[in-house]
Amino acid sequence: MGREFLNIMDPEDVKKIIKNIPINKRVENISLENSLTRILADDVHATINLPPFRRASMDGYAVIAEDTFSASEDEPVSLKLIEVVGAGDVPEKNLVKGFCTEVSTGAPVPEDANGVVMVEFTDKNDGQIIIYESVAVGQNITKEGSDVMAEKLLLPSGTRIMPDKIGVLSAMGMKKVPVFKKPRVAIISTGNEIISHDEELAYGKIYDINSQTISSAVITCGCTPVHSQIVKDDYNSLREKINEFKDLDLILTSGGTSAGTGDVLREVLDDMGEVLVHGVAVKPGKPTIIGRLKNGDDYKFLFGLPGNPVAALMVFHVFFAPFLRKMASINVSTSFPYKNVLELKLSRRFRPARGRTHYLLVKIEDGSAVPILKDSGAITALAEADGFIEVPKNVEILEKGSIVEVHSLGGLINPII
Amino acid sequence: MGREFLNIMDPEDVKKIIKNIPINKRVENISLENSLTRILADDVHATINLPPFRRASMDGYAVIAEDTFSASEDEPVSLKLIEVVGAGDVPEKNLVKGFCTEVSTGAPVPEDANGVVMVEFTDKNDGQIIIYESVAVGQNITKEGSDVMAEKLLLPSGTRIMPDKIGVLSAMGMKKVPVFKKPRVAIISTGNEIISHDEELAYGKIYDINSQTISSAVITCGCTPVHSQIVKDDYNSLREKINEFKDLDLILTSGGTSAGTGDVLREVLDDMGEVLVHGVAVKPGKPTIIGRLKNGDDYKFLFGLPGNPVAALMVFHVFFAPFLRKMASINVSTSFPYKNVLELKLSRRFRPARGRTHYLLVKIEDGSAVPILKDSGAITALAEADGFIEVPKNVEILEKGSIVEVHSLGGLINPII
Repeated sequence: MGREFLNIMDPEDVKKIIKNIPINKRVENISLENSLTRILADDVHATINLPPFRRASMDGYAVIAEDTFSASEDEPVSLKLIEVVGAGDVPEKNLVKGFCTEVSTGAPVPEDANGVVMVEFTDKNDGQIIIYESVAVGQNITKEGSDVMAEKLLLPSGTRIMPDKIGVLSAMGMKKVPVFKKPRVAIISTGNEIISHDEELAYGKIYDINSQTISSAVITCGCTPVHSQIVKDDYNSLREKINEFKDLDLILTSGGTSAGTGDVLREVLDDMGEVLVHGVAVKPGKPTIIGRLKNGDDYKFLFGLPGNPVAALMVFHVFFAPFLRKMASINVSTSFPYKNVLELKLSRRFRPARGRTHYLLVKIEDGSAVPILKDSGAITALAEADGFIEVPKNVEILEKGSIVEVHSLGGLINPII
Repeated sequence: MGREFLNIMDPEDVKKIIKNIPINKRVENISLENSLTRILADDVHATINLPPFRRASMDGYAVIAEDTFSASEDEPVSLKLIEVVGAGDVPEKNLVKGFCTEVSTGAPVPEDANGVVMVEFTDKNDGQIIIYESVAVGQNITKEGSDVMAEKLLLPSGTRIMPDKIGVLSAMGMKKVPVFKKPRVAIISTGNEIISHDEELAYGKIYDINSQTISSAVITCGCTPVHSQIVKDDYNSLREKINEFKDLDLILTSGGTSAGTGDVLREVLDDMGEVLVHGVAVKPGKPTIIGRLKNGDDYKFLFGLPGNPVAALMVFHVFFAPFLRKMASINVSTSFPYKNVLELKLSRRFRPARGRTHYLLVKIEDGSAVPILKDSGAITALAEADGFIEVPKNVEILEKGSIVEVHSLGGLINPII
């Protein structure tokens, strides 16, 4: 009865296999309004000068600077006001010596003006502006293109579009931006005992946990979960579904990976393609499987998670999430480089599994990491957990007070949603 | 010409005023599928036992444990197989002494069975199961409710629904979850020079930057931006819009706050209600305004950002984002408590503004924070920036190599989207 695992692999070797999986990226143009958190798929160059015209950087009076050179508190200069130009207005009159134009911050300055006297250094008197301080040539005027010259590289391909970068793209008047398409990932929950929340809970059945958990974890990696479905644990149902989903970017399954009676995923993968990994030396998560399927001239990959919900989520984060983010073009190291773990003291001594890398759920209490010592299938463990720690396989004891690195169960600290 | 600022306030006093603004929270029931990153508005108690029935935790044979007590490698025990029960099946036959039932992991065990022998310690021979090891009473059987008993508190109100918590809610078969409604925030960009990207860029005009920047920043705080609009900088247009938006949870404006000619927001607020803040001792961001408007028996608040895009985004993050997150019920301190800043060395000496708290954009290069020394309106500064640092008003010089705390311009490290 049952089959053996192909060959229990070291987790580092599994990571290497995943790292070598080729990725096809696709690009789409989407409206700027919908681009928050997306990744630019092309360099963005300036399409206009910024500012697009010569403008006042202060409220005041545009002048011919030379007219003000002799001005002082004691011997002010008087200039005749010929026009008022607000922001958004267009100056209609040329300036000649002896005259000035009132301008607001951001307003265009008349062509012949070469300085703006700040309103604070002036007085108004019957159409005449009394000026108490001189301005230098160019003072309080922002030149066209002084911030950005058209064609300058503004944002390189790969930039994550956060609010500040939306500001940059808005300044160019961009309506559409080229971004990487979100990879589409099929989610399959296998198991004859699993029912959806639309069904009545009959004896012997349990509600499906993994399809929603893993779907939402996929979202936090910048991918789109599709066809999230429950599939019976039999050869034909599973093979049919996998075949149906082969055009998507990836298939993620959970369950059906143990070396037990009803576990047919391995068999399906053997027949449809090749099993690259079956069994990893980790706890929990040993029955993890990776298959490669021929699809035309191309290969498609299937990542099989354990059925146990805690194991599924941990294996997802440790092995598969980095690949999903890479598919989604999210370069974690060039994103805002916050440290992705929290360093805390362990609240008690912990003896990990021997010979396997151990992923341990912890909750954070009083600033310490408290191990959650429950069966790895326990939903209470998930309810209490704030994150998990990784204990390498050669560690025999983690002493109370050791510094551990707590990883978020939400995936990245900065989930890409 | 122009008016003076009401009274330049210390940033800490402004934060206090904002902290005291009352918040009305509303609740809605949404489908679990759409609940990722939302905040639970009620305690969630278990509605069923987990597991919901007594089940096998290993593949093997359900037995009456006493039958196996004498079993050993040398003197195995033989039991007759009466039934095979897979996961999701229902056992149909009672077990009596001398018999056993084949069970898969997760399958219900027959009522009279009180132990499961792992398949590894058995052999099959013509309808007889040869058992080489004894099992203790209860071994490899998970009791009904041993993980979760119905009515147990699973997730407290205020929990942020991330993938692991979606797992917990799925395990209960929940279809709907009670969450806090996302507060709705009106976004108004004021200015006669500002046009939307649907318009042609005429002389004297610039593209609107703030409404999209601030809308997306609002999203990262767990709120919903609505009615994002450009409004002319005149009394009637502005008053009309503000009146129209008074039923929303908050109004955010940008521009129209300086003490200049076209700056009418202060006047509108004075007439419609009360100006609580006008002018803050920060750089950039001095022309920040907060108004309180009477709305029936209630008050509504308007936060006015400077028109300058860099200043607007910084003021938003420093003063308003914490309030928006509070409206959205996002308790940063009880979320996964990563440090919300990155500590880096300053790449060069920096002399901040005197007498004002100075917010300085920085980029991160070779692990150092590099000040971006550009006009605060510069779009190139936003393009290059990775974050900003806060320099308190009494600091005269920040020496090269000082450790500074870099804040993300995306808001929280863990943006709530």
